[in-house]
Amino acid sequence: MSALQEILRTIEPLNSKAMAEAEELQRNLIKPPGSLGELERISIQLAGITGQVHNTIRHKAIFLFGSDHGIYEEGVCSSPQDVTRKLMLAYAEKHNAGINILARQAGAELRLYDLGVKGLSDTEGIITHKFMTEGTNNFRHVRAMSADTVNEVIMFGVNLVREAKSEGIDLIGTGEAGMSNTSPASACIMAALGSRDVSLVGRGAGLSDEAFRHKQQVILSSLELHAKSLTDPVNILSCVGGLDIAAMTGVFIGGAVYHIPVIIDGVISVAGALLSYQLEPLTREYMFASHESLEPAYNYAAEAIGLRPSLRMGMRLGEGTGCAVYMQIIDDALAIINDMGTFNNF
Amino acid sequence: MSALQEILRTIEPLNSKAMAEAEELQRNLIKPPGSLGELERISIQLAGITGQVHNTIRHKAIFLFGSDHGIYEEGVCSSPQDVTRKLMLAYAEKHNAGINILARQAGAELRLYDLGVKGLSDTEGIITHKFMTEGTNNFRHVRAMSADTVNEVIMFGVNLVREAKSEGIDLIGTGEAGMSNTSPASACIMAALGSRDVSLVGRGAGLSDEAFRHKQQVILSSLELHAKSLTDPVNILSCVGGLDIAAMTGVFIGGAVYHIPVIIDGVISVAGALLSYQLEPLTREYMFASHESLEPAYNYAAEAIGLRPSLRMGMRLGEGTGCAVYMQIIDDALAIINDMGTFNNF
Repeated sequence: MSALQEILRTIEPLNSKAMAEAEELQRNLIKPPGSLGELERISIQLAGITGQVHNTIRHKAIFLFGSDHGIYEEGVCSSPQDVTRKLMLAYAEKHNAGINILARQAGAELRLYDLGVKGLSDTEGIITHKFMTEGTNNFRHVRAMSADTVNEVIMFGVNLVREAKSEGIDLIGTGEAGMSNTSPASACIMAALGSRDVSLVGRGAGLSDEAFRHKQQVILSSLELHAKSLTDPVNILSCVGGLDIAAMTGVFIGGAVYHIPVIIDGVISVAGALLSYQLEPLTREYMFASHESLEPAYNYAAEAIGLRPSLRMGMRLGEGTGCAVYMQIIDDALAIINDMGTFNNF
Repeated sequence: MSALQEILRTIEPLNSKAMAEAEELQRNLIKPPGSLGELERISIQLAGITGQVHNTIRHKAIFLFGSDHGIYEEGVCSSPQDVTRKLMLAYAEKHNAGINILARQAGAELRLYDLGVKGLSDTEGIITHKFMTEGTNNFRHVRAMSADTVNEVIMFGVNLVREAKSEGIDLIGTGEAGMSNTSPASACIMAALGSRDVSLVGRGAGLSDEAFRHKQQVILSSLELHAKSLTDPVNILSCVGGLDIAAMTGVFIGGAVYHIPVIIDGVISVAGALLSYQLEPLTREYMFASHESLEPAYNYAAEAIGLRPSLRMGMRLGEGTGCAVYMQIIDDALAIINDMGTFNNF
């Protein structure tokens, strides 16, 4: 049995006793039952994750995975590929990108990982762990990475959560940077759900009509090329995945193993969530959907997992920005169950 | 010309120069243009409201209007009517209701107004300004209040914003408490939009199937009774409104007059927003929709105004709770435009 299979077997359902207690407490707070909707549901799910009715988030972190993608060569992206590297430097050195600002607003630590960013060398503030120095292979022609690499990257993600747990991190957001990474994300979601519907492919950061149609065709051809090998999540990641998506798959698994809530961001993140859900459906119980990405495959994947995001803000930046905005809603949910009065002394 | 008509004439469009500058700056921030969706749009609208590209919210306030409603007598509500008074005391004395907790989370001051809560006497922490001591009349039989009272209450709301402006309040949320107040809200929205579709009437805080059908019939009969008088927003409020909705109508007008953004909460609040929009369409430019209430008339009214809420959380508590959650999103939007780096030094 592989290390991944072994760890998947350790995942448990949520603590139903703690959830029942949280539900009972919610019914007794001074409001019509259910009238705080998601704020109630979040507090009950968190009780199930931690086993305690009352929870407080003390140490939030956003794990941002930088990586490049061989599929970039096919002309599926409107930005220069070097933007991946430049963004990583902006996060680490200038602290002035979208996720820097929004993580600060949420009181979350931002952790940056270089899993395979072209031309990015060791940089203070970035944890360098290159699984493929130049990023993945071009999956229009060959597998993006070997199945062994997939297993390694997933276990890397799992272990990040194990370490996070020992540090006291109690809420994790998932972010990424990597030019053209909506292509592997759409391809993984379509492969995982057995769809060849090109309307699931989005424009990413802003393609022209022609380049957009080309991107759709590149993804269809790639899915056709690998059709016989898209048999399970590890092979899907190997054929048409990305290092970022594989690492996130591991983080979602890790959240379930180590009982830490993990927030889904946009379409890259939800691809990882979907693959972890297919590896072990119980991982869903430890996930939170944050915002409805404008990428069309997002909703398709979220619905397949059985999740509905609370934020509908037309965002499609990635980086974990949706997670950061959502973290404040989790804080709100916990403040309600922890501090609100009950009908006992109304 | 009435005081209300006079004040409506002073409302100006948003500052298009500041908006164009904010839009230009957003295009130059290190992200694909438009990729932060609502966070960008909010910052541009705020620039239009204040006339400045860079804004910071320093003093948030939630105005919560308590009032009782004569229509309660018709059996349209499942809670004892005295809950209005008890809630007001919980807000003012125990500080442990939903809005107390969520306003604290948002860093917002909570201001409580008694516009006509049955049995509530002067209480520290509540501003007593009873327009009708026992609340409105039962609009199933007579007008809820006189047209003069409507004008007074609207101007009261307008003046609250004038005072708020002089105190440095720069963001206002609208909340309410009042048993059965989803009935006047639905009736006002149906009257304002010329609809008699009973599916717009919601269950409020939790009616049985039978009581729910009864509530729908009560609202239909009331709209029929007053049909010939539902000619304009003031008469609609007079016939089937509430003191809370009238005050909120004034606050939305005041926001537009004094250039302060005002946030819509749920169905009672959106009824006030819709009536202020019908009095002067420019008021819309100063409003922000927060969350999609579960009450069916909410979306109907929001769409008529041309607004779409960002939060979809299944909330229906009222009190301004949706506004409080949304205030953090406004803070996020301002942090992005104020602090994010540009492509100039990327």
